Amino acid sequence: MVVKVYGPAYASPKRVLVCLVEKEIEYETVPINLFKGENKTPDFLRLQPFGSLPVIQDGDLTLFESRAIMRYYSEKYKSQGTNLLGNTIEERGFVEQWLDVEANSFNPPIYILTVQIMFNPFMGLAVDDNLIKENEEKLGKVLDIYDEKLGKSKYLAGDFFSLADLSHLPFTQYLVGPIGKEYMIRDRKNVSAWWDDISNRPSWKKVLQSSPSPLVD
Amino acid sequence: MVVKVYGPAYASPKRVLVCLVEKEIEYETVPINLFKGENKTPDFLRLQPFGSLPVIQDGDLTLFESRAIMRYYSEKYKSQGTNLLGNTIEERGFVEQWLDVEANSFNPPIYILTVQIMFNPFMGLAVDDNLIKENEEKLGKVLDIYDEKLGKSKYLAGDFFSLADLSHLPFTQYLVGPIGKEYMIRDRKNVSAWWDDISNRPSWKKVLQSSPSPLVD
Repeated sequence: MVVKVYGPAYASPKRVLVCLVEKEIEYETVPINLFKGENKTPDFLRLQPFGSLPVIQDGDLTLFESRAIMRYYSEKYKSQGTNLLGNTIEERGFVEQWLDVEANSFNPPIYILTVQIMFNPFMGLAVDDNLIKENEEKLGKVLDIYDEKLGKSKYLAGDFFSLADLSHLPFTQYLVGPIGKEYMIRDRKNVSAWWDDISNRPSWKKVLQSSPSPLVD
Repeated sequence: MVVKVYGPAYASPKRVLVCLVEKEIEYETVPINLFKGENKTPDFLRLQPFGSLPVIQDGDLTLFESRAIMRYYSEKYKSQGTNLLGNTIEERGFVEQWLDVEANSFNPPIYILTVQIMFNPFMGLAVDDNLIKENEEKLGKVLDIYDEKLGKSKYLAGDFFSLADLSHLPFTQYLVGPIGKEYMIRDRKNVSAWWDDISNRPSWKKVLQSSPSPLVD
């Protein structure tokens, strides 16, 4: 059964794609254009009532929320491809801790930077410079804590690559690219080395190549 | 080994407490007063670098992020107390999906209502009525989706109680109590029945009784 992933051009669905590549799971993608409101059609809302991306279909199973989908496949195919959950219950605890940090502390400010700097100009909407400044500061404080942590272990949850690292790939790629704030990574030695490591994984290069940014076409 | 839970008076640590009660795990609490800045001391920041609550200590293990802690104990003591993760990998997938909905869609607006309506007046800070209105609308839309889902299954992830339901208890208790917006629950038939069910669990009553709101003393 091939997994169907909706909305591959955007950042959150790319979390799922890179996870599926790491787990050696076959998938196909279904384009959904947010700028044309394709996420608000009755058909799409039946799959995902919030009108958000991603959502997957896998036989009878429909599942949404990118991190939940990643957990599901990492658990279901535990011994296939890269182990993304750690080896022990404690290691998984640390994976979950840093995955929640990514969702609750890293993602909110970087998402606002993405909307303000990438999407609003693309859609002809106003840009709020104070909001950009405020969220750049918030993100900087989070990255300072990452820098300290990554001085003690190679990856966020310990000395093993996991969902906690992988989940940072799509929006950090925006940060060093179209958002134009690569210095936020490069000014922090351990974060910089970590970014070079995780962004050079073949899985991520494959995803970037096969599903370019939504602002490209 | 007794689990030490920091900051029991606040809402996020109460997620952990009610989970520990459901799992029949012994714990002790360590009061942390956010209004006195006890979460910003060097000692506390060594445990939790973001200065957030909760954090737990369990022998050599230190873990933060309430939902990560709940997942850890629910997994570690799978067959002790209430099963909070479902019985199959698919059921766990749905638990994770709705737990992420709670974290990413339900919690942000209800947290802003909590700060604006409960905490700002308590601290003598200004209240932003537009922000309250905007977030009450956002929360209403989330609860509309819950109401539809809870018309199809007894609980969020299916016909079994799970972490996904439990995680809503502390802030919804604020909503129907000190925030003064119980109508948001009562106006939605299925959400109302669900709330009566989950808020009447002995575990939740025990937690409320033993760790009252931070605004009480």
